[in-house]
Amino acid sequence: MIKEYLQARRTLVENRLEALMFRVDGPFKDIIEAMRYSLFAGGKRIRPILCVAAAEAITSDAELLDEILDIGCAIECIHTYSLIHDDLPAMDDDTLRRGKPTNHVLFGEATAILAGDGLLTFAFELLSSPAEKIGPAARLRIINLVAHAAGPEGMVGGQALDIAGENTDYPFTHLKTIHSSKTGALIKASIGAGAIGAGADRRQLDDLVHYGAAIGLAFQIVDDLLDATSTTEILGKSAGSDKVRGKATYPGYFGIEETRNRARSAVREATDALSGFGSEALQLRELAEYIQQRTY
Amino acid sequence: MIKEYLQARRTLVENRLEALMFRVDGPFKDIIEAMRYSLFAGGKRIRPILCVAAAEAITSDAELLDEILDIGCAIECIHTYSLIHDDLPAMDDDTLRRGKPTNHVLFGEATAILAGDGLLTFAFELLSSPAEKIGPAARLRIINLVAHAAGPEGMVGGQALDIAGENTDYPFTHLKTIHSSKTGALIKASIGAGAIGAGADRRQLDDLVHYGAAIGLAFQIVDDLLDATSTTEILGKSAGSDKVRGKATYPGYFGIEETRNRARSAVREATDALSGFGSEALQLRELAEYIQQRTY
Repeated sequence: MIKEYLQARRTLVENRLEALMFRVDGPFKDIIEAMRYSLFAGGKRIRPILCVAAAEAITSDAELLDEILDIGCAIECIHTYSLIHDDLPAMDDDTLRRGKPTNHVLFGEATAILAGDGLLTFAFELLSSPAEKIGPAARLRIINLVAHAAGPEGMVGGQALDIAGENTDYPFTHLKTIHSSKTGALIKASIGAGAIGAGADRRQLDDLVHYGAAIGLAFQIVDDLLDATSTTEILGKSAGSDKVRGKATYPGYFGIEETRNRARSAVREATDALSGFGSEALQLRELAEYIQQRTY
Repeated sequence: MIKEYLQARRTLVENRLEALMFRVDGPFKDIIEAMRYSLFAGGKRIRPILCVAAAEAITSDAELLDEILDIGCAIECIHTYSLIHDDLPAMDDDTLRRGKPTNHVLFGEATAILAGDGLLTFAFELLSSPAEKIGPAARLRIINLVAHAAGPEGMVGGQALDIAGENTDYPFTHLKTIHSSKTGALIKASIGAGAIGAGADRRQLDDLVHYGAAIGLAFQIVDDLLDATSTTEILGKSAGSDKVRGKATYPGYFGIEETRNRARSAVREATDALSGFGSEALQLRELAEYIQQRTY
């Protein structure tokens, strides 16, 4: 059931991205084509799905949920930009992503840098677009939350630490800082943005953000795990690359079995945070369960 | 008098940037240091100065103008990010900017890419920060305007065209597209943001945006001119680099004299657009005059 749900939501997100995104024509068609290539190169769309699922825990207003989908799509643009820049030769130097050539392999380095810049900037254009249901004050809070999560104290800062930390020994607490900033912050912000957009009260927002932090952690642990245990064919990107690059990972600190335990415990913390919600948080619970299933 | 005004405003902008910017401490200090290096490496601060001057044509409310200064500072962060990325080896490969080593020369390519990403994202965090005087609806309009101007149909798109156009022949209309998107759009948005923040009515906004478009054009023509006629020592960046790179420029199409005429005529159009304003637009007129003086 969760598989069907995820597939249906992915289709929803991709159709919406297609409707929101620049068309390929006019003087800027080359850069827009490069942006579109990475945006539509697959991906689990987990951030927009979490964003909408968090909103559904608060509201069932279909028009409001439609606007929240747009916010999720903007966050997906930010996620995609980060992948393009992370893959650059000066960064992780990856040639394969989701089973396809990375952006710079296909379009060249200059265009890949600009395609990333373009997606990041376009995300804020989307987030600030005129809307009917989410009031301007809530939209500003969402923009502030997302910008902070994506910025130097969030995703950008985490990527800088990740690169600086290659082939160095550092304590586990530092790995936690890298994970929570590089991956966790934007996942947490996806949940927070959905909740704020849906009009969550203080307690609801706290609970959902708590869920988001735990699910973000679980997500990253599972990513480490899959890099260590899966194959390039299944992942669609180079498996074992963490080890090759001398990156610290959960399996590196704790071994496979204890890493699985920690993923499970993060998932449990996520679902526990939802105890104040009823069936309206069903999708969030299933998403947590889905992340746990990925560990096997 | 304009020199003293510009110097005083530069100081004001830099003090404000210093107050707004992340401090160098905590886990993300390295990336923040790289961001700060380029942000405080000099620069004319023309965009925030224009932003505030446009607001001063509408209002004399000191607290409101203070908030508009913050908006100008955010735009300066976006401008600085664009310089860092433009200077990268994969782009213009410049080693000198404002008489100092470029970001990637000092911090390496990966950090320079991330420092740019960080400044761009931080700009939107600033623009969406809680404020007292500018209401949320106006702030959203400003964010939307700035994001569009900086994005794939603005600055990012213009830089993509600029790089693609090196060593190729194209018609003058295409050069105009490059200029108006790469440089003009953000300058025009600086004026528009200041005007919207100050509560400009429809006619005032139209006039000021018209001024902004003309001043942005004048600015770019003068830049082309200085690259052709000045020295590296005076510019603080490599003079003659347009020719070396095979970039189309105004002097390349029209020669030096006719290029000067066109700069003058753009400046005239800018000041003409201000005819509906009285002495409250004095600074905008002087800024136009200053840009013309740079042609000699």
